[in-house]
Amino acid sequence: MSLFSYQQLHSFTKSIFLQIGSNETNAEIATKALLAADLRGVDSHGIARLTGYVRLWEAARVNANPEIKVVYETLSTAVVDGDKGLGLVVAPAAMKVAIEKARQVGTGWVSVKNSNHFGIAGYHAMMALEYDMIGISMTNASALVAPTFSKERLLGTNPISVAIPAGNEQPFVADFATTTAANGKLEILQRKNSPSPAGWVQTNEGQPSTDANELKKGGALLPLGGDKEHGSHKGYMLGSIVDIFSAVLSGANYGPWVPPFPAYVPMPENMPGEGIGHFFGAMRIDAFRPAADFKMHMDNWISRFKNAMPVKGFEKVIIPGGPEREMEKERMANGIELLQPVISDLGELADKFGLKRI
Amino acid sequence: MSLFSYQQLHSFTKSIFLQIGSNETNAEIATKALLAADLRGVDSHGIARLTGYVRLWEAARVNANPEIKVVYETLSTAVVDGDKGLGLVVAPAAMKVAIEKARQVGTGWVSVKNSNHFGIAGYHAMMALEYDMIGISMTNASALVAPTFSKERLLGTNPISVAIPAGNEQPFVADFATTTAANGKLEILQRKNSPSPAGWVQTNEGQPSTDANELKKGGALLPLGGDKEHGSHKGYMLGSIVDIFSAVLSGANYGPWVPPFPAYVPMPENMPGEGIGHFFGAMRIDAFRPAADFKMHMDNWISRFKNAMPVKGFEKVIIPGGPEREMEKERMANGIELLQPVISDLGELADKFGLKRI
Repeated sequence: MSLFSYQQLHSFTKSIFLQIGSNETNAEIATKALLAADLRGVDSHGIARLTGYVRLWEAARVNANPEIKVVYETLSTAVVDGDKGLGLVVAPAAMKVAIEKARQVGTGWVSVKNSNHFGIAGYHAMMALEYDMIGISMTNASALVAPTFSKERLLGTNPISVAIPAGNEQPFVADFATTTAANGKLEILQRKNSPSPAGWVQTNEGQPSTDANELKKGGALLPLGGDKEHGSHKGYMLGSIVDIFSAVLSGANYGPWVPPFPAYVPMPENMPGEGIGHFFGAMRIDAFRPAADFKMHMDNWISRFKNAMPVKGFEKVIIPGGPEREMEKERMANGIELLQPVISDLGELADKFGLKRI
Repeated sequence: MSLFSYQQLHSFTKSIFLQIGSNETNAEIATKALLAADLRGVDSHGIARLTGYVRLWEAARVNANPEIKVVYETLSTAVVDGDKGLGLVVAPAAMKVAIEKARQVGTGWVSVKNSNHFGIAGYHAMMALEYDMIGISMTNASALVAPTFSKERLLGTNPISVAIPAGNEQPFVADFATTTAANGKLEILQRKNSPSPAGWVQTNEGQPSTDANELKKGGALLPLGGDKEHGSHKGYMLGSIVDIFSAVLSGANYGPWVPPFPAYVPMPENMPGEGIGHFFGAMRIDAFRPAADFKMHMDNWISRFKNAMPVKGFEKVIIPGGPEREMEKERMANGIELLQPVISDLGELADKFGLKRI
């Protein structure tokens, strides 16, 4: 484990995106979106995936300089074709379209096809905050999750993020997978050789399991709720809504046909759409009431929840986005720790392109 | 337990709404919205609550003939003031505003203040279906749910419904509380003197409990997920988003200040807004792609999920809305069973207004 400054990781990552042919602007956009994950403590979605993105490019599954186009629109909606681009570049472009529409008519809603993995959902939703807008971001992903009563994997971890501006308080930023636990948490348990808590995974026959390696054996992640008695049908519905908004509205692939992230996994057969799908929304808060009123009440909401009486043994109730914001401040100041396997991976990447290792 | 025809329940319910002063139109709208719950099998939210609505009217907390007004708007948004009306009347009016805006600019988004309980969320979301639109409906409710790490109840069961049209297949209709289990399910266990499954409730000190009567002792319902290890922070975030969209955007009460449904419970002190809040959305599917394309892919999505390999012991994977649709058909044909306490309640109501008992 070693510590790297944000600047170090930024210039390394950007140089890799430049190497795979991204122009200066796109390389900068992709780098910032990717490293937002490392800064916010979502280590599984940040620089650890850089090698994965390069492999997708090598497999000709991503286009480093996509021509991102609005292919269908109304005053408050659009469908964006990502032209096989990096989701890290396509998503911010699509979110900008949503924000511009919100500026014009109060809200903007953009469904995206023909894209790839976009990093963390929260980064794109938060783009709306500086415009005094609520930002919404979601994406589908390759199937790892079994709907309630199914032994097949038909949904991705399909995350949802909602970012809401406040006044004196910091914004409310929810960003969560629609599963009980994210795949990244299972990977941590695998490394430690620890079992998984009940309700996270099932076997390939759909039986309850606490084996953290279950996914490698054809098992599945469980929707938020875990089992029917604890509301897994609700997690299944949420994941489905994300899938439909992201892909059935746009013309991307959905359900079991979403392209896999690892380039060595073959593409599904008979794919019904193009690439991966995302969905973005922006709502101007002053399209509902004067922004100052909204912010005053949002501050009141946040401070009431922050000051809720905590359960013994816990310090306080957490406002969504708070811990990630603290982490970002801390890592920007003191650096970002990377695990040895990630450092080795990045070393090989450097060698491949004749760059200096970090 | 006795069986009643929909027509019987309809004319009885409508006569009660007429008795409390609703005009003909409003009485009809309220009756249909309320009984949609009984038809769809959500018995806790239907005619069993009629007495509760009458008590709210007696306490002057609802206005039988509200002047429902748009008080703020843009091309794609509006805030509706429900004028203390029955949510059963206010919600369909607000949903109509959303639908009309979607007709004009692709989508419509309406936040509502100064309303009351609106029955089941799904009824309002489904209004969009006949216009080939996706309908979205949510509401806040009085606080029964403790955020993760809190021993205080700060959120309602805050349900979300999303209704999505299909082609040859029946529509996808998700409608769920953002808690592990709805309060109605606890009430069933109370009647049977059965314990609650783990992860549904906590004590007034925030400790895990399986006592189905915990709420009466100051305990709380748990957000979807149950505990932190199983993602309760995600349920807490979902409930919070519903609360903020419904009330902070509109100017209704939020968090612990949402007015209680039972008229004997005193109103919270220092309420920051007016009444209960709802949030509605309508999205024209042809604001994203030709409606026929969307429907063809939605049919494909539904049929793939319906035909997923089920876990042994289960017949098939359920498409959200399917079981409720079957129930509605069955109950419309064969009648609706009411429990004896509900029948007695309705009898007293009949006596109060000098109407014939059902």
